Amino acid sequence: MTGKNSVGFNFSALGTYTFQTFNPVDNSYNETLFVEAVSEEIEEAVALASNAFEELKGISHLKRAAFLEQIAINLNENEAQILACNLNESGLTLERARIEMKRTLFQLTSFSELVKENNWREPSIDRANPDRIPSKPDLRKLLVGIGPVVVFGASNFPLAYSTIGGDSVAALAAGCPVIVKSHPLHAGTGELVAHCVIDAAKKSGMPNGIFSNLNGQRFEVGNQLVMHPLVKAVGFTGSIKGGRALFDLANQRPEPIPVFAEMGSVNPVIILPNSLEKKIDEWSTMYADSMSASCGQFCTNPGLLFSVKSNASDVFIKQLTKKLLHKEAQTMLHPSIHASFNRLKADRLEVEDLLYFEKEGEIGVNSGRQTIAVVSGKVFQENPSLEEEIFGPFSLVVECESMNEIIACLKNLNGQLTASVLGEVDEMNEHLNLLKLLQNKVGRIVFNGVPTGVEVCPSMHHGGPYPASTDSRFTAVGVDSIKRFARPIAFQNCPNELLPLELQESNPLNINRREG
Amino acid sequence: MTGKNSVGFNFSALGTYTFQTFNPVDNSYNETLFVEAVSEEIEEAVALASNAFEELKGISHLKRAAFLEQIAINLNENEAQILACNLNESGLTLERARIEMKRTLFQLTSFSELVKENNWREPSIDRANPDRIPSKPDLRKLLVGIGPVVVFGASNFPLAYSTIGGDSVAALAAGCPVIVKSHPLHAGTGELVAHCVIDAAKKSGMPNGIFSNLNGQRFEVGNQLVMHPLVKAVGFTGSIKGGRALFDLANQRPEPIPVFAEMGSVNPVIILPNSLEKKIDEWSTMYADSMSASCGQFCTNPGLLFSVKSNASDVFIKQLTKKLLHKEAQTMLHPSIHASFNRLKADRLEVEDLLYFEKEGEIGVNSGRQTIAVVSGKVFQENPSLEEEIFGPFSLVVECESMNEIIACLKNLNGQLTASVLGEVDEMNEHLNLLKLLQNKVGRIVFNGVPTGVEVCPSMHHGGPYPASTDSRFTAVGVDSIKRFARPIAFQNCPNELLPLELQESNPLNINRREG
Repeated sequence: MTGKNSVGFNFSALGTYTFQTFNPVDNSYNETLFVEAVSEEIEEAVALASNAFEELKGISHLKRAAFLEQIAINLNENEAQILACNLNESGLTLERARIEMKRTLFQLTSFSELVKENNWREPSIDRANPDRIPSKPDLRKLLVGIGPVVVFGASNFPLAYSTIGGDSVAALAAGCPVIVKSHPLHAGTGELVAHCVIDAAKKSGMPNGIFSNLNGQRFEVGNQLVMHPLVKAVGFTGSIKGGRALFDLANQRPEPIPVFAEMGSVNPVIILPNSLEKKIDEWSTMYADSMSASCGQFCTNPGLLFSVKSNASDVFIKQLTKKLLHKEAQTMLHPSIHASFNRLKADRLEVEDLLYFEKEGEIGVNSGRQTIAVVSGKVFQENPSLEEEIFGPFSLVVECESMNEIIACLKNLNGQLTASVLGEVDEMNEHLNLLKLLQNKVGRIVFNGVPTGVEVCPSMHHGGPYPASTDSRFTAVGVDSIKRFARPIAFQNCPNELLPLELQESNPLNINRREG
Repeated sequence: MTGKNSVGFNFSALGTYTFQTFNPVDNSYNETLFVEAVSEEIEEAVALASNAFEELKGISHLKRAAFLEQIAINLNENEAQILACNLNESGLTLERARIEMKRTLFQLTSFSELVKENNWREPSIDRANPDRIPSKPDLRKLLVGIGPVVVFGASNFPLAYSTIGGDSVAALAAGCPVIVKSHPLHAGTGELVAHCVIDAAKKSGMPNGIFSNLNGQRFEVGNQLVMHPLVKAVGFTGSIKGGRALFDLANQRPEPIPVFAEMGSVNPVIILPNSLEKKIDEWSTMYADSMSASCGQFCTNPGLLFSVKSNASDVFIKQLTKKLLHKEAQTMLHPSIHASFNRLKADRLEVEDLLYFEKEGEIGVNSGRQTIAVVSGKVFQENPSLEEEIFGPFSLVVECESMNEIIACLKNLNGQLTASVLGEVDEMNEHLNLLKLLQNKVGRIVFNGVPTGVEVCPSMHHGGPYPASTDSRFTAVGVDSIKRFARPIAFQNCPNELLPLELQESNPLNINRREG
């Protein structure tokens, strides 16, 4: 571990501002001093990326696929060291870190396959018709990479949604060089992962500049990257405040660029009243497990539960509370995140006519006390701030008078990544208006399950109406996320030999094409 | 013709501000007084659209397809009246108006077919695997309409890119209600077309609010529409200034929404030097025809021509000028557009070391004098404003010392809808760096042709890097333009009977689905 920036294939530490990462379990700083990137290094990284983008056009997709596969091999080989560092910088458990590494490797392999198959470029052909009046030209279209992409990693996913996480791998798959603004909370993990990526790039014959990893604790590094005219898109995972700030910045550029920010969500869960009675035990266990997983530090954490007040719902809330408070409190990612959790929660618990149940007794340093709060539907509707996310093991139960009141509450809710509906099919059929409403509000509807545990597969949609994400039309998880970093280009009457292989008449790559 | 707004199915004229359209051929105002929509009418149109969006979810795609087909039938039946009005409000020729009507009908039919086939929703299925640890859920995904869409029509396409033009028909096809901010220069044509749309909506059993047509000459109508929280996307065709203003406005909303603005472009044409000699006659005719078509009032008008200085290029410029100035001057769309053309051109012609050739003698009122200006590559590079579009029959020839100087000029060029390369294949093969560079700059590369005459087909891409459009990832022409107005939604472990038909296990609609 050097603490240096990776500017293309070179290590660089021209700056004087340094910072350390923090071990929230030991409550102490880790040793390495990370040197924040300076303007000159940022310029160099972007210039290299821009050159690499041009060079990539002449490199076959098979080599790019092999590059992604090689990254996975390198990560695998260095897993022990990376996980050890990851734990020291996040307080996450080894089991959780292993699962996250597995997901990271799976994403690399999935995208490598996608690039190899080469159908994602959506080749489309409409042949000429010289007999038509006026004569019809030959038109052929396919997707190309959008250009250099800047990626801001997530605090809560040091592996799967950071340095070589979902955004980076999707961009590389699309043929876009990536400049990572490394997350300062896990800069060491970021550096180790970056070494794996850069080694793989060299081994696979990728151009210098295809990947850079820049340290930055203050805003300047990210802002300079987003404003750089040669940067063409941004991926971000984090808070609404952070994502919106980058979105606003990018839209103020002379040439605005897309910012794909996956931001906050409270992921409402709706329990259908008649179904509840038979499922109190199952659903209370499921919910308590979901909201306490990784100390509630998931973007899909269920932060809002709607039920209709009844004896069954009273029993359910009691059981849920008991099961939740019975669990060990867990360490949060960082003292700052822990402090923010406590501050937001304290404010929330002061709302009038709100009941709450909080984990009591001694807990570890930087640990989050899991908490359930309960309000009526009326109070919820009177306090719009109650829908705001509290990042950590907190959930608000809204007890309504009726399904109609639940729907009234949901109507005013902001956009969400997910909503979950718990109930039997017959009862769901009685509430089709609920399902219709949810389609306007969320990117994914979960039936009789919880929102955590985001499956990585082509049919996943991870994104939703603002503020769940800045662009509801794109997913941040699964191979379709490549579409964020690609744009179409059409060739009109292009001589066959000058066409990209994907569009040549003989279909030399033997791929699926839309032909008109 | 009433001059009233269509607020859903109702005529409404609550306001007091009125305006008239103008006949640029007669140089006189047309009779009808159009009443600008007021705040109350805008609110009502959006509220109706929002309700219609919900109702549309319960209406089959076949009925929606029939609606689009019925609009085409209605337009056909009322063609004579619509074209007469169109000519009175635009100064376009009858031939041109007929071609545009044909394109409008073709677009309606294409989208009707697309909706009928129902594959555009990109249904995707990943089935459950209960044996995997952890068990894999069932996930199914498809595209749904994004919500009510506001459309700003184009001044230069009263039919094909206005009231029921490309943006409106794509949005309706996606299941999104449309509110048109009618273009004030052809408000009468807009009203007649709106009547056809609304009659079709009634005949096809579409909900009230699926379509509204609001008059607006001042900015307030459009601004209020774009800022309305229930509006979810915007389509715009027009100037960079106008498109950027709406884009900025939409991004300042609490919930930002996408603005698809198709804006300015100078559509560079590059002539390869060795090929020119044999093609002087053919290419000068083609270019003169292209830049004078519809008095140069096309977004694909070729406004910039690059050649390498030689005897051949001197002869080419002479021939081009002769052919162009020999043509009749044509009436422009409106005195304001005519005045703007003259003002911008006068400024441009004052650039030092610029030669120009302008149509001389008497021409009709509001007619644009076609003009060719010539500068060296050096002068072009010293004057960045020379690349700015002049809307009308104007083109700038840049005579460079070498292909390298052409490439240097192109490197600094803004994003464009198109670029054209004229040359023989052998010579193109010597300039692959040019073709690579153009891919970064444009949405469509035309080989041995001109950019005008945009074919409507699936492989067309009409859009390009900013400022050609605000989002280079989407086309404004062809059926893929539907993707602008749709977003994915995923269903996790959804009971089969509650799934949309497109995703049900038995594939009752018998459509193509991606299965994992």
